[in-house]
Amino acid sequence: MTAQQMRSPSREGVARAADKIAQLLPQTPLLEAEINGHTVWCKADSLQPIGAFKIRGAWHRLSDLSQAERAAGVVGVSSGNHAQGVAWAARRLGIRATIVMPVDAPQVKLAATRALGAEVVLYDRPGGEDRDAVASRLCAERGATLVHAYADPWVIEGQGSAGLEIVAQMQARGLDGPTRIVTPCGGGGLTAGLALACPDAEVIPVEPEGWDDVCRSLASGEIQRVAADAPPTACDALQTPATWPINFAVLQQRCKFGLVVSAAEVRAAQRWAFSVLHLVLEPGGAAALAAVLAGKAPVDGRTTIMLTGSNTDPASFAKVLQDDD
Amino acid sequence: MTAQQMRSPSREGVARAADKIAQLLPQTPLLEAEINGHTVWCKADSLQPIGAFKIRGAWHRLSDLSQAERAAGVVGVSSGNHAQGVAWAARRLGIRATIVMPVDAPQVKLAATRALGAEVVLYDRPGGEDRDAVASRLCAERGATLVHAYADPWVIEGQGSAGLEIVAQMQARGLDGPTRIVTPCGGGGLTAGLALACPDAEVIPVEPEGWDDVCRSLASGEIQRVAADAPPTACDALQTPATWPINFAVLQQRCKFGLVVSAAEVRAAQRWAFSVLHLVLEPGGAAALAAVLAGKAPVDGRTTIMLTGSNTDPASFAKVLQDDD
Repeated sequence: MTAQQMRSPSREGVARAADKIAQLLPQTPLLEAEINGHTVWCKADSLQPIGAFKIRGAWHRLSDLSQAERAAGVVGVSSGNHAQGVAWAARRLGIRATIVMPVDAPQVKLAATRALGAEVVLYDRPGGEDRDAVASRLCAERGATLVHAYADPWVIEGQGSAGLEIVAQMQARGLDGPTRIVTPCGGGGLTAGLALACPDAEVIPVEPEGWDDVCRSLASGEIQRVAADAPPTACDALQTPATWPINFAVLQQRCKFGLVVSAAEVRAAQRWAFSVLHLVLEPGGAAALAAVLAGKAPVDGRTTIMLTGSNTDPASFAKVLQDDD
Repeated sequence: MTAQQMRSPSREGVARAADKIAQLLPQTPLLEAEINGHTVWCKADSLQPIGAFKIRGAWHRLSDLSQAERAAGVVGVSSGNHAQGVAWAARRLGIRATIVMPVDAPQVKLAATRALGAEVVLYDRPGGEDRDAVASRLCAERGATLVHAYADPWVIEGQGSAGLEIVAQMQARGLDGPTRIVTPCGGGGLTAGLALACPDAEVIPVEPEGWDDVCRSLASGEIQRVAADAPPTACDALQTPATWPINFAVLQQRCKFGLVVSAAEVRAAQRWAFSVLHLVLEPGGAAALAAVLAGKAPVDGRTTIMLTGSNTDPASFAKVLQDDD
C-alpha cells in the first residue's frame, strides 16, 4: 500500500466525491415508506447503473488517478459489486481493469463484470490463496494500482457521497437530514463514508449471522476477524473477513454498536422490498432493511435505510419470493 | 358525465398538474440503459408510492374538487392501479373513496386498495354488469364524483406530468427532450397526456395481443372495441374494452400507429427489467419495454420507455423469472 493510500478519508473528500459523482450519475431515489408505524426513508442505491453503490467509490478513486497510473491499469478484489464498480469506471476512463473474484461469486456478478470489459481472475474462497495476496501479486507484476474494496480513503469518501445525497433529498422535502442511517456492512467502506458525510446522524452497521466481525470489533474495541469456520451466507456482498484500521478508526469513533440479522430476516426484507418498494434487492443489499423490519434498529421519522445492491440470480430471487419462512 | 368533465385536456393543464405533483411526489428516476446498441431512457414510474403512474391523474383530479364535491366522495373504476391512485389521493385529502373492481383483479391490488382505506365494490368482468354502469349507479345514489380511469381531462393532464418530468430530466443531462415515447396503453389516458406534454415527440402506444383496440382505432380512424371473446392477458392493467372520444381526439392527432406485444415478449421484458434495471414490473407495466426489446419500436439515443406499474403477486413474478420462453 502506498503512502498516498494511507491518508485518512475526510468529510471534505466526501464533498469532492459527491460533486464529481453528481456530474455523472443522477441521484438515486429516496423512497418514503412506513415500518411499524414510523416513516422511514429508503435510499435505493441498488438502482445505480451497476446495481450497487460501489460505483461511487470506484469512480472517485479511478478518476483521481494520474495519467501514468491510468496507463498502468487497476486491480480490484470483490465478490462482484465492487468488481462492477471498478470495471464500469475503468471502461469509462479507458483504463485496463483486472478483478480478483471468488469462484463462488454469483454468476450474474461474474458475467456483468466481464461484460463491462474487465479481466476476471478467480480464486477459491475458503482455504485457497489469500485474495489480497493474489491482488498484490498482480499489482506488482503489472505496476497496476490496487483499488481496495473498502480500505481506501477514496473508496470510503466516494461511498459517503450517498450520505450527502440523502441530506439534500430530505432537505428538499422540508426535513433536516437523517437522525440515523442503518446500513449493510461488509468491510466498512460505506459505513465509514456515511459516518463522515453525516456527522450528526447515528450510523448503525448491519451484518449477516456468522459474519459479524464489525459488531464484535465495536463491542471489544479491537478489530476482530470472522471465524475460519464461518457458516455460508446468502449475503455474498457482506462476506468480508475483517475490517481494516482505516475504516475502524472512523467506525470506532462514530458507531456505538452493530446489528446482526438472520438469513430468514434477510429473505423477509427482500420480499418486503418487492411488495412495498417494488425493488429487486440482493440478500446483502437488504440486510439493513431486515434489521429495521425485525424491530432491531430504532426508528423515528428521519431514519434512513441503505438499500445497497440488487445483483441476484433470477432463480435465487424466485426462490426467496416463494419461501414463506 | 358533467359538462365540466367534458372540457378538453390541455398542455397548460399538464403543466399545472406537474406543479401540483412536484410539491408532493419526488421525480421518479429516468434510468439510462442500452438496447440493441442504442441508449434508451426508462421512466420508472413503477416506483411511485402506489407502484404505478396512476397516482398522478388521481391527485390532479381529486385535489381540484370543491369542498362540496369532496364531502360527497368519489367513485373510481379500475383493475387496481387507478384504484390505488384514487384511494391514495382520497385518504390524503380526507375524501371517501369507493372503487369498482373486477373480481379477478390481482389480489395484491385488491388488498392494497383496501389498505388505503377505500371501499371496494366487486363486479364480474366477463358477462356481468357493465362496470361503468355500476359506477354511475353508485355516483347517482351518493351524489359522488366519478373519477374515470382515463376518459377525464384532469386524469389525462395528471398522467401527462410524467412527460414534463422526462423533459426536465433529459435536459439536466444535457439532452433535448425525448424524440419518441413508447408507452403501455390501456384506455389512452397516459398516452394522451404524454402527447400533450411532449408535442415534439413521437408517441407510440403499446397493447397486449387481443386487446389492441387503440392500434386498430388508429389504423381505421374510428374507435374500435376489443372483441367480446378477447383472450385472457396477464396485462390486467391494459384490459380496457375501448378508448373514449376525449382520449382518441388526442391520439388520432398525435399517434401514427400502435404496437402489439405477445405474452412471451412481456415476460421477457419483465426478466430484462429484473436483471438490468433491478426493477419489479407487472406485465402491463412492461409492455412498452417489451416492444422495444423485440425490435418493434424504432430507437435512437433519445427514445424514452414508460415503465408504468409494478403491482404483481410474488408467485406470478417468481414464475416469470423461472420461465425461459
